[in-house]
Amino acid sequence: MPEAFLQALRRDAEAVEAYLADTLPAGNTIAGAMQYAVLNGGKRLRAFLVLESAALHGVAREVAIPAAAAIECLHAYSLVHDDLPCMDDDDLRRGKPTVHVKWDEATAVLVGDALQTQAFAYLAATPVLVGPLALAAGVDGMVGGQALDIAAETADAPLTLAEITALQAKKTGALIRWAAEAGALLADADPAPMRAYAEALGLAFQIQDDVLDVEGDAETTGKRVGKDAEAGKATFVSLLGLDGAKARAAELVTIATEALAPFGEKAENLRQAAQYTITRAT
Amino acid sequence: MPEAFLQALRRDAEAVEAYLADTLPAGNTIAGAMQYAVLNGGKRLRAFLVLESAALHGVAREVAIPAAAAIECLHAYSLVHDDLPCMDDDDLRRGKPTVHVKWDEATAVLVGDALQTQAFAYLAATPVLVGPLALAAGVDGMVGGQALDIAAETADAPLTLAEITALQAKKTGALIRWAAEAGALLADADPAPMRAYAEALGLAFQIQDDVLDVEGDAETTGKRVGKDAEAGKATFVSLLGLDGAKARAAELVTIATEALAPFGEKAENLRQAAQYTITRAT
Repeated sequence: MPEAFLQALRRDAEAVEAYLADTLPAGNTIAGAMQYAVLNGGKRLRAFLVLESAALHGVAREVAIPAAAAIECLHAYSLVHDDLPCMDDDDLRRGKPTVHVKWDEATAVLVGDALQTQAFAYLAATPVLVGPLALAAGVDGMVGGQALDIAAETADAPLTLAEITALQAKKTGALIRWAAEAGALLADADPAPMRAYAEALGLAFQIQDDVLDVEGDAETTGKRVGKDAEAGKATFVSLLGLDGAKARAAELVTIATEALAPFGEKAENLRQAAQYTITRAT
Repeated sequence: MPEAFLQALRRDAEAVEAYLADTLPAGNTIAGAMQYAVLNGGKRLRAFLVLESAALHGVAREVAIPAAAAIECLHAYSLVHDDLPCMDDDDLRRGKPTVHVKWDEATAVLVGDALQTQAFAYLAATPVLVGPLALAAGVDGMVGGQALDIAAETADAPLTLAEITALQAKKTGALIRWAAEAGALLADADPAPMRAYAEALGLAFQIQDDVLDVEGDAETTGKRVGKDAEAGKATFVSLLGLDGAKARAAELVTIATEALAPFGEKAENLRQAAQYTITRAT
């Protein structure tokens, strides 16, 4: 990846990480576990999308930083709850014990709950983003996708390509779309180009996750690999084959890139981000 | 209780119930379980506080109704998660099977998550209430109180009166305070009188819960009784005695009532609500 893009990604991640470290609650066990769950050296792709979308639409960085923190808290809450024994039952997240393993299940439930609350706390100063985040996170968005994913585990037949695409558009796509649209919403601009970009990017991102579940190793990805195949779950790789999945992801990156045409050169970081989603190893 | 108050309580409960029935998500298992958890014939005391607080401050009822729905969703989410096996492990809530019993644990986690999201969705049109609800619901409010409650179960010594008062101020008091202050916040008025009212009311409410855990029966209260004594937990009754707890609750009702003095006759429903918290049987 071009050095300018990687620098921007690092700079944005550091900015949101510093803001989170300064502003997250502190002083008791739950707050400590919240920090553990959020301040984990993640890629901060969603925060990057918020900050770059804001820059693209002329929104001041200090207005966008809390929104970037919000989406990282929302995402972290979803991971803490997804990792619970009654959900995906994962012990490892980015190479570290998950919250219910390091503490206990009750703590993990409360930490996830409080992280979702914190996400909306961060949006108090940008109310235009509250309704859209609630829509993206709720039963017609992320939680709905998670429910479809759980239902698929006990279904008679594996999901079809159309079903898995619809599932992922909710489970991971909805938050990515909110992040990419945030700048347009804050600037009261047309969010349609960012939406088209985000929909292609989100799907490419998920396809690459499936590719990494087959090709990656636990040390680099920081999570258990091969678990989808093991569980007999339909994935983009099981449905399209490894080469087919990679080809589809590459097509989606082209679509995402073309959606940014109205912005010209200013959107270069976001173009690179689309490329990054399918070249990343973690 | 005076008929005028009981009518107002019923009218407000019906209004928020109808609004929730009209506007809650529908169409899949999680949405159905959300409706089950929220539309359960509860007293709607928190919704009543929002609507009466709004009326007292001259805020239009149609502005306050979504805020009343928000606090009922927030409260319902907390109950669904509190009932989980890893938390209080309750099978019965208002006489019906709890969500994880009727469905399963994963569903209960997601339903609670989505109900919290829905609470903030309902506040999208009243952004002044977003930050205060996040504060009331988060790690320095309700979730923090719940964490203290869980920690108390494995502590060496039962909680002192000061500790249990502080715990309850967060666990149940924070949402009650938000509800009572909502009208003042919407009207950009001084929330101090409503805060003083709510702090006394919230504590009286919790003392009455402890009294009902001793004196109530499962059929009327719709939940398991005697469970605190069984668990050896400190309660206001174990610390003050039954008569002492009742006397303290009555004192708090007087304090709550006096806090409403600036509002004169207009606050009669809220005065009656304070009385109601210690005379209710459910």
